[in-house]
Amino acid sequence: MIVHLLLTGNELMSGDIVDSNSAMIARYLADDGWNIRKKLTVGDDLDELVAALQWLAQDCDVLLVNGGLGPTVDDMTAQALAMACGVELAEHPTALHDLQQWCARIGLTVNAANRKQALLPSGCTLVANAIGSAPGFAMLLGNCRIICTPGVPRELDIMLTAEILPALRESFPIGSSQVRRFALFGIGESSLQQRISDSITDWPSDIELGFRAGFPQLDLKLGTQTAAARAAVEQLLPRLQPLIADYLIGEGEISLAARVVQLLAAQGKKVTLAESCTGGQIANLITQVPGASRVFDAGFVTYSNRIKHEILAVENNLLETEGAVSEAVVLQMAAGALRRSGADYAIAVSGIAGPDGGSAEKPVGTVWIAWGTRDDLRAQRLQINFPRQQFQQYVSYIGLDLIRRALLGIAAEPPYFRTRKAR
Amino acid sequence: MIVHLLLTGNELMSGDIVDSNSAMIARYLADDGWNIRKKLTVGDDLDELVAALQWLAQDCDVLLVNGGLGPTVDDMTAQALAMACGVELAEHPTALHDLQQWCARIGLTVNAANRKQALLPSGCTLVANAIGSAPGFAMLLGNCRIICTPGVPRELDIMLTAEILPALRESFPIGSSQVRRFALFGIGESSLQQRISDSITDWPSDIELGFRAGFPQLDLKLGTQTAAARAAVEQLLPRLQPLIADYLIGEGEISLAARVVQLLAAQGKKVTLAESCTGGQIANLITQVPGASRVFDAGFVTYSNRIKHEILAVENNLLETEGAVSEAVVLQMAAGALRRSGADYAIAVSGIAGPDGGSAEKPVGTVWIAWGTRDDLRAQRLQINFPRQQFQQYVSYIGLDLIRRALLGIAAEPPYFRTRKAR
Repeated sequence: MIVHLLLTGNELMSGDIVDSNSAMIARYLADDGWNIRKKLTVGDDLDELVAALQWLAQDCDVLLVNGGLGPTVDDMTAQALAMACGVELAEHPTALHDLQQWCARIGLTVNAANRKQALLPSGCTLVANAIGSAPGFAMLLGNCRIICTPGVPRELDIMLTAEILPALRESFPIGSSQVRRFALFGIGESSLQQRISDSITDWPSDIELGFRAGFPQLDLKLGTQTAAARAAVEQLLPRLQPLIADYLIGEGEISLAARVVQLLAAQGKKVTLAESCTGGQIANLITQVPGASRVFDAGFVTYSNRIKHEILAVENNLLETEGAVSEAVVLQMAAGALRRSGADYAIAVSGIAGPDGGSAEKPVGTVWIAWGTRDDLRAQRLQINFPRQQFQQYVSYIGLDLIRRALLGIAAEPPYFRTRKAR
Repeated sequence: MIVHLLLTGNELMSGDIVDSNSAMIARYLADDGWNIRKKLTVGDDLDELVAALQWLAQDCDVLLVNGGLGPTVDDMTAQALAMACGVELAEHPTALHDLQQWCARIGLTVNAANRKQALLPSGCTLVANAIGSAPGFAMLLGNCRIICTPGVPRELDIMLTAEILPALRESFPIGSSQVRRFALFGIGESSLQQRISDSITDWPSDIELGFRAGFPQLDLKLGTQTAAARAAVEQLLPRLQPLIADYLIGEGEISLAARVVQLLAAQGKKVTLAESCTGGQIANLITQVPGASRVFDAGFVTYSNRIKHEILAVENNLLETEGAVSEAVVLQMAAGALRRSGADYAIAVSGIAGPDGGSAEKPVGTVWIAWGTRDDLRAQRLQINFPRQQFQQYVSYIGLDLIRRALLGIAAEPPYFRTRKAR
């Protein structure tokens, strides 16, 4: 099944919104082994839309159209599809009936603007919208099945899962492509590629090795098209495993924080945080994980020296002589947080996120991290040259990764200690 | 100037990454009044790429191509452009020289994979890449100037601002469209539209009213094409202002947290946080703002009852009788944080983020928020029915908004007290 995607909306052209609908559609299709071949985005312009529909429909089995179904004048998908197919617009009785029901449900009467949503290309079939006012609709143009869907993500989601995908599964064979994903942290795409190609020189040609360099996580992907290739993956994994073990968060969609929560819970341990430059982000990454309360009681965002002293009992003379961004201070922050919270593990960070506050000795990007248990606290200085928000994020991930490594007993020095070494 | 955009990469087709590069490009172009007319995305497929280049180039002045410049076999933009233009690939001496310099700078020698990046369509002109190994390049196809850029966002950003936009400004007149944006929180798109159309019935036809419904912020946009329309905007603003004043964060790109930091700094005040269900997110939103240390010393992530008692002196009998999610407890959390930190304002939140932990009396989504000063602490119960991460985000924004309203002396009840009322 060849699928094309047409997205419409001025807001997609202006940079006002980042399109996430097409990623949603692609992921659902991928679950059935189907891929999108071409994806076109145009503004709310009737001529452009008609041309786009005709161009995309000519060499695919299914064209999914997203957006432009609303009640306002800039919603023109129905009209464009009618023109592309050479038919008229006509009021669709079932669509009108559904619309009246929808309006009645939320206590409105159908007005002229709403009523426009029931004006659909003659001969189209309806695709039910379980929660919104805009009906979806489908139509053949040549051999291409064109399916028009609403831009509201929740409505699109329900329409895809309840209506469109089941119908496609009846008409088209399940696709052949499958992907296994492994989430990693702490190694770069090119270093990992090098490790793998150095070590597995007979990489099977029917396993496609791919990467998705998110920030800060990296996904390694093994793509296959055949059952034989999937058997080859099983053979390959024991050889791949030692190459990625130190960086592996888990298989599939899993965040580093979720992995840390999982490991802590499995070992019956708790973690506490003393955050200066990360400003609460590590706490937030942990508490975004459902069930975080099993492993997390307390986090301290100690932004000023006074609070580091009063809450975490960091000694004032150290703050004065060594400065807040120093080994002695992060170690005392971690120790103070452990005492205050009664947790087993701590992460403490103090650094200079920028853009201001740097000095010759401690430039912007300098950070001290302490981590470990009461009896085994360590600290490391790093130099993280990212803009403020990415700095906070990357430092937060390093803190979590150091706890992951401690919980797993990984002895090797993490690569970021080498690559992010302070001058 | 008519601009088209071609994005390439399998990761853009699979849903593995959400494309944010095209929003970056669109925003830079919009600063000069230029719009993108069509945006096409295809995977790493040579035939698709060649067809896409030829189709898009036929009716635009400038075609920006993003991605596919890297060293690996799936990077085929240069080859596709050569084929589309009917020329050969040839090693570009300057590109090779730059590449050697780049490799030398980071201590590598040029290998075969890298060297491929200097193989460019004959007759193209180079577009310098200040920080990466992949050179950009440009070429005419018919009347269309095709400019190929790297997919790495930082490299794209620098190439756009340092090379491409200055060159386009020399060749094409500045576009006519301008947009003024106002960032808002606490009112929905349809409510605001209704307020405006009820109140300003003679809305000038040459001012385009638009919205960008982010989460949780909403942008209101006033688009104009002429100097007369821009004068009309100046006339309109005093009438628009009272309709949006209670919700206004500021003009342009500004976050709610940045506005709160600004207001606190202007009034010489500090804020502290006692976070349970938001788990550090409010602290992180504040500390993401450069200069947050002027207004923020301490945040307390008190996730367990014991820590609420030990750190913030919430009374144990209240925790037992009322429960952690209660008016009495959030008020004591706020008071405790104010005492501990010496801050002027506090936000305290305790709620049930889900998916587990709800009860009949306090279902998932229940949250108590306290806010204000030592002498004027208030609390409100709300029902926020979002998935865990959006719940945390929306509650964090409400907390910040309540402080914004307090600092500005806005007396009116915020709309979310009505729409998010607990049952």
